[in-house]
Amino acid sequence: MTGPDQVVITDVALRDGLQNQSRMLATETKLSLLHQLLTAGVRSMEVGSFVHPRLVPTMADTDEMCRRLPPAPGAQLLVLVPNLKGAERAIGVGVRHVRIVLSATEGHSRSNTNRSVSEGLEETRRVRDALHAAGVPDVTAAVATAFVCPFDGVVPLDHLHGVVARLVQMGFGEISLSDTLGKAHPDQVEQAVAVMRDDFPQTAFSLHLHDTYGMGLANVVAGLRQGIRAFDGALGGIGGCPFAPGAAGNVATEDVVFMLQAMGYDTGIDLDALAGAAAELRAALEGPLESAVSRALGWTT
Amino acid sequence: MTGPDQVVITDVALRDGLQNQSRMLATETKLSLLHQLLTAGVRSMEVGSFVHPRLVPTMADTDEMCRRLPPAPGAQLLVLVPNLKGAERAIGVGVRHVRIVLSATEGHSRSNTNRSVSEGLEETRRVRDALHAAGVPDVTAAVATAFVCPFDGVVPLDHLHGVVARLVQMGFGEISLSDTLGKAHPDQVEQAVAVMRDDFPQTAFSLHLHDTYGMGLANVVAGLRQGIRAFDGALGGIGGCPFAPGAAGNVATEDVVFMLQAMGYDTGIDLDALAGAAAELRAALEGPLESAVSRALGWTT
Repeated sequence: MTGPDQVVITDVALRDGLQNQSRMLATETKLSLLHQLLTAGVRSMEVGSFVHPRLVPTMADTDEMCRRLPPAPGAQLLVLVPNLKGAERAIGVGVRHVRIVLSATEGHSRSNTNRSVSEGLEETRRVRDALHAAGVPDVTAAVATAFVCPFDGVVPLDHLHGVVARLVQMGFGEISLSDTLGKAHPDQVEQAVAVMRDDFPQTAFSLHLHDTYGMGLANVVAGLRQGIRAFDGALGGIGGCPFAPGAAGNVATEDVVFMLQAMGYDTGIDLDALAGAAAELRAALEGPLESAVSRALGWTT
Repeated sequence: MTGPDQVVITDVALRDGLQNQSRMLATETKLSLLHQLLTAGVRSMEVGSFVHPRLVPTMADTDEMCRRLPPAPGAQLLVLVPNLKGAERAIGVGVRHVRIVLSATEGHSRSNTNRSVSEGLEETRRVRDALHAAGVPDVTAAVATAFVCPFDGVVPLDHLHGVVARLVQMGFGEISLSDTLGKAHPDQVEQAVAVMRDDFPQTAFSLHLHDTYGMGLANVVAGLRQGIRAFDGALGGIGGCPFAPGAAGNVATEDVVFMLQAMGYDTGIDLDALAGAAAELRAALEGPLESAVSRALGWTT
């Protein structure tokens, strides 16, 4: 389905975007936003995370979200699963699309999950097996801190290569690479993606980028240049890292859509309709949005 | 002096940045900011514009600024000159570094100066001749709306090529290309720069980019890829277009510096020292700054 001019954007506002907000949105509000995103043409989005509710309280209603998901033919409504317990919850509510998240770096892996990277990979395999055994059809891997780690610094390409190789050996056909901190620079992203594409030609890679230092769209372009046609974005550019106060969030879906449209790519997303979703998000969060497009087009006023 | 790893950043906060602010900064405040920028290692900056004070009241003190400029050995303190009257003012106060500004597009040229592009080019020649006759040693050309015009839309590359060819024929050795609206996308910038570099190999091109839609750094990378080693930026990302309410300003100097440092380029600018200048700018404007780096590093708090 995806030709060279089509780009899939997965909106992660309802997961990564809300994950670090102090404000809790009602499930009803999340479902309304989800509906607006679908209406705007977003065909892929993260709707929650089966992380422990004590760690991320804003995701505590993920089970309820999944039970109340509307029929959305052709759309990919994803949840994040970090461990076996999360997999059980996902299976329990009949989730069809799962991203298993793991860290590429020792520091981040230990800090987040108290596991080494190697143990995280083993857990990823167990989670994948459990999901497959339960008949979940769409299971992919999401590699956090693929480029820069808050504890270990810049990730050597060889190290990332080793983690990805293990995932490919396990049979993952789709792998998302995350610039969790927004600190990867375009040359680093382009080089990493080029190597992955060459060494793992059967694997579909996507990029999850943050805009903390303004490099989000530059990194989208770096990925595009090496054939990436799937990117995460978050409506309003919300998100942000709890370990970096003041940091901006995910690269904004509307910024990615605006640029890709200008460059002649087809995202299937209607920018005007996205404005409506952004207005609802802004009202729900009672705060301004972070995206350049929302400011430029007056969505925040 | 400029090797492959050195990039010159011209800070335009005191000109383009303040040009569209409602708040008037005292000349004293501007000179203090200028001092801070020099201290941070900025070796090139715009300090004012000899535009008619009725049109841009915040630039009315440019004559006084120029008279009070500190000795700054090795630094390039530039003023913008749009016409012969401005050239007379520049000569009158002993300016050494001038950018003559003209529009690439008919709509913008007529709206801004009531001249056609061709007439603008002729005025540029007269201004250059007057400045040369007065012994001004450093005279370059700055082409506004080089990529997208608020009136004429996307600028065909052939059209820009024609304008640049005329400037090269007049003898300009340095030409700045401006994405006035921040609407150029990276492929457009890269293609245009590649053609200019190939067709005018003796000319030094620089890029003046706005971050209205978040594409500022992506366009910096597009320029870098084609050999551009000189970019404008504005401290705090201030600026903005009076014809596009809510638009963000120039690409922020600190965002450009942060990315270029990560990519291994040498800008000569100290990011920590820039934070001090940003704090003073923020206090003077009594408002938050627009840059990603100022948010991420807590400069705005």
